[in-house]
Amino acid sequence: MTRSLTAFLLLGLAGVASAAEYIDYAALGRIRQEGFTNSKVMDTVTTLTERIGPRLTNSPQMDAANEWTRKQLAEWGLSNARLEAFGPFGRGWEYQSASVHMTAPRQFTLSALPKAWTPGTEGAVTGEAMLLVAKTQADLDKYKGKLKGKILFISDAREIKPSDKPDFVRYDEDKLKELQSFAIPKPADAAKRKSDAEDFLRQRELTQYSNRFLAEEGVLATVSLSSWDNGIIRVTGGGSRKAGEPVGVPALTMITEHYNQVLRLLEKGEAVKLTLDIKARYTSDDDRVAHNTVAELPGHGKKDEVVMIGAHLDSWHGGTGAADNAAGVAVMMEAMRILKATGLKPKRTIRIALWSAEEQGLLGSAAYVGTHFAELPVPADPKLKDLPRSLQENPLPPVLKPAHGKVSAYFNYDNGGGRIRGIYAQENLAAAEVFRQWIAPLADIGVTTVTSRNTGSTDHVSFDRVGIPGFQFVQDNLDYFTHVHHTHLDGLDHIQAEDLRQSAVVVASLAYLAAMRDEPMPRKPLQP
Amino acid sequence: MTRSLTAFLLLGLAGVASAAEYIDYAALGRIRQEGFTNSKVMDTVTTLTERIGPRLTNSPQMDAANEWTRKQLAEWGLSNARLEAFGPFGRGWEYQSASVHMTAPRQFTLSALPKAWTPGTEGAVTGEAMLLVAKTQADLDKYKGKLKGKILFISDAREIKPSDKPDFVRYDEDKLKELQSFAIPKPADAAKRKSDAEDFLRQRELTQYSNRFLAEEGVLATVSLSSWDNGIIRVTGGGSRKAGEPVGVPALTMITEHYNQVLRLLEKGEAVKLTLDIKARYTSDDDRVAHNTVAELPGHGKKDEVVMIGAHLDSWHGGTGAADNAAGVAVMMEAMRILKATGLKPKRTIRIALWSAEEQGLLGSAAYVGTHFAELPVPADPKLKDLPRSLQENPLPPVLKPAHGKVSAYFNYDNGGGRIRGIYAQENLAAAEVFRQWIAPLADIGVTTVTSRNTGSTDHVSFDRVGIPGFQFVQDNLDYFTHVHHTHLDGLDHIQAEDLRQSAVVVASLAYLAAMRDEPMPRKPLQP
Repeated sequence: MTRSLTAFLLLGLAGVASAAEYIDYAALGRIRQEGFTNSKVMDTVTTLTERIGPRLTNSPQMDAANEWTRKQLAEWGLSNARLEAFGPFGRGWEYQSASVHMTAPRQFTLSALPKAWTPGTEGAVTGEAMLLVAKTQADLDKYKGKLKGKILFISDAREIKPSDKPDFVRYDEDKLKELQSFAIPKPADAAKRKSDAEDFLRQRELTQYSNRFLAEEGVLATVSLSSWDNGIIRVTGGGSRKAGEPVGVPALTMITEHYNQVLRLLEKGEAVKLTLDIKARYTSDDDRVAHNTVAELPGHGKKDEVVMIGAHLDSWHGGTGAADNAAGVAVMMEAMRILKATGLKPKRTIRIALWSAEEQGLLGSAAYVGTHFAELPVPADPKLKDLPRSLQENPLPPVLKPAHGKVSAYFNYDNGGGRIRGIYAQENLAAAEVFRQWIAPLADIGVTTVTSRNTGSTDHVSFDRVGIPGFQFVQDNLDYFTHVHHTHLDGLDHIQAEDLRQSAVVVASLAYLAAMRDEPMPRKPLQP
Repeated sequence: MTRSLTAFLLLGLAGVASAAEYIDYAALGRIRQEGFTNSKVMDTVTTLTERIGPRLTNSPQMDAANEWTRKQLAEWGLSNARLEAFGPFGRGWEYQSASVHMTAPRQFTLSALPKAWTPGTEGAVTGEAMLLVAKTQADLDKYKGKLKGKILFISDAREIKPSDKPDFVRYDEDKLKELQSFAIPKPADAAKRKSDAEDFLRQRELTQYSNRFLAEEGVLATVSLSSWDNGIIRVTGGGSRKAGEPVGVPALTMITEHYNQVLRLLEKGEAVKLTLDIKARYTSDDDRVAHNTVAELPGHGKKDEVVMIGAHLDSWHGGTGAADNAAGVAVMMEAMRILKATGLKPKRTIRIALWSAEEQGLLGSAAYVGTHFAELPVPADPKLKDLPRSLQENPLPPVLKPAHGKVSAYFNYDNGGGRIRGIYAQENLAAAEVFRQWIAPLADIGVTTVTSRNTGSTDHVSFDRVGIPGFQFVQDNLDYFTHVHHTHLDGLDHIQAEDLRQSAVVVASLAYLAAMRDEPMPRKPLQP
């Protein structure tokens, strides 16, 4: 093996004074060959979505997915394949069917699905629709005694906004270039943080009050407006997953075209009657722990150091959770399979983690990081304990554990199933420079962009916020944010097989380079 | 009033040696003022879609729409508002609700709607899904005795094709220019016509055979694949509307994402069970006549000559038939209202016709033209009598009636609810030149394009094919051919109010100019 001349040349051209990264082209070639000629990534994503189905945290399907991923990783020859419990998370939930029909002033079928963790109806029930958008407890109290048997429409109408952009997009050169400029952040705004925290707590209190109030008043169900247009049901959770908390009444999310129509009829003074039949159930009475699936390719030489890759295994329930995020799970599992199949011997251990409860606030990855690497102290005030860290005043600094220093980097995949075009360096400029060299041999498969920008909202944040280098990829959007994200259309038909094959090869390549690097990935200073 | 100087100037610039059209700018100004400041077009489209609902030919809602439009036109002061019967057309049909759930191998709700003129189920029924794509009677016969209780998936799977174009589009200058080039038609191909005619008759025979066979075999239902992706149910008719004909079994159209998923499960050898509950009914046992709504603004001076405007009032049943074609009906009714409200006295009578059964083959307009203007003889061979005229060998020439010479022009509106950008001259070059002059004062509201091209598929064809100048407008597409046409999303939310107001003003302007012209609209030679 020789040090890469290409890397030196690239550096020379860019005029950057930093050390050249060692790149083992032969190893990258073996990874590519295995990933492109012997891929199992579509088998994996198909099993997760269509044999197992959607994987709401703590649902029977999520249990099956935990068990299947553990078994499959072990069958591929990975070590220490296991489930790690965390929690208690709450109850499981699943829905079997949901029918919604208008019976007056005319008859037709409405398109809606139940929110997770909301109760079903007792068989088919019929009630009158009524608009009630409550912003405060007082807004609700005004209707005391007047809501029995009603089906409440709880969102304002929304005009459909025609879009002049294609639904399915890939990055072009201009957009990738744009992504490389960094927006200088504004100074912290203590007043805004305080008011956001108050809003958060007020909203949570209103939700709990509303759940209790609506059930006590004998409301039949609530209906919310889907957040996207064109017949798409974008549905997440409602009610409560916590044993003992009020779960409220059956709650549906309805397509814009049908929701608006009901509201227009109500506005004209028509009596609108709906018949609902929602079969849904909590799969346990008590709060249960949830599980992350973990497995390893043991290192050679630096076995106690680790490079981690991961993706969340849980999903919402409206579709089959294909792009969000069976795609990521399949890509990460495939990267592990490729690395094992090539017979390469990375110095550091490469560990995969498939998270649960990402959709409820990165809970699986946060718990894992807390157990193994660094605990984030919870505020003593019980009222504040669920306040997101970003809304806490002077959050307590993380308490580091010995293994904190042993994790070189964590790579996460959770932006739909689009191929990898680059990586977000999360303001870690030293890491950005390493990535620029590492991706040079991946340019021919479309990976060209390192941006210093931060990206959030998924499990790399659990690492990044305790000072462990955690990264998420720049991926082609495809139709993730137009058709698929948290919608009933998130299924196998919106997955692009070639993109998943490319992604698995890229992840395996970067994980291997990280595991072979002389030094661990450079770190940013730990921020409070 | 003086002859328009502008028209002369325009002709001078274009170097065209044709007579200048007289344009009464003052009248056009009054039309515009009434249409833009006192519009009722949104009230009309709202009543049709949301108070009345979808308007399948001969359904109770279509009856209500016929009656309401007649009454409304009379209330606006138009003359001879009446319903004209034609037919018998067939039976009426409506659906109340449709629920489709997968119960094995996992439980979830599938998105599908019944085809018009197919029977409902007898309550909730459960059966096993099975793929059976039959191209011939023999394909069906092979399964004799093996289909009892099955739910047949009768389409092949279709891969979703990502689109790189926006869903919502308006014409730009380039596209309008492109539209002005005429594609020289290929010579008639007798062999192709013959084979198309044979295919047509064979397909019709297969449908009737299949309807009988599947019912006799005890098939529970059939499921077809929606022709568009992304959760859109694009559903038209099935079964049979004719009393005495076999109607087959319940028949659904399902979204691509769910249809493909069932097929993939079947391919893997899974037993897929579905529960269906479809409430649908024929609203009469016998074939009934259908009705066109007709009303007039009587002429002054050339009262026995007529300019006609029209749009089809019937729709499919999946949505509320807003863009197809309550929009067209509302625009044409509004044009009549505007003309009446202005107090203008057109020389020729201006008549509106709101057609029924356009969706079943332009039947309402064809019957009207046959009764009043020119009959198209039906082939003597009973087997050929339903063969479309374009597939007939040596079709018999139309038999003209005295009023044939009294119709100056017919204007039709049926390309969704997008504003008018121009007009198709249907190869009538003399008419094209008239239109070029007439639209000059409409350029500031977006009407700039006359194309010599033919356009088809709607009711102006019933006039054009018997030699009466019949025209259809060039309209902005909006999302008509991406979200709305024949889909469950065709509702008021996809209507653009400003486009309908513009269209009504344009139609009223052109109808007035046609009614005032010294000569009738020039005609093309009558083709066999």
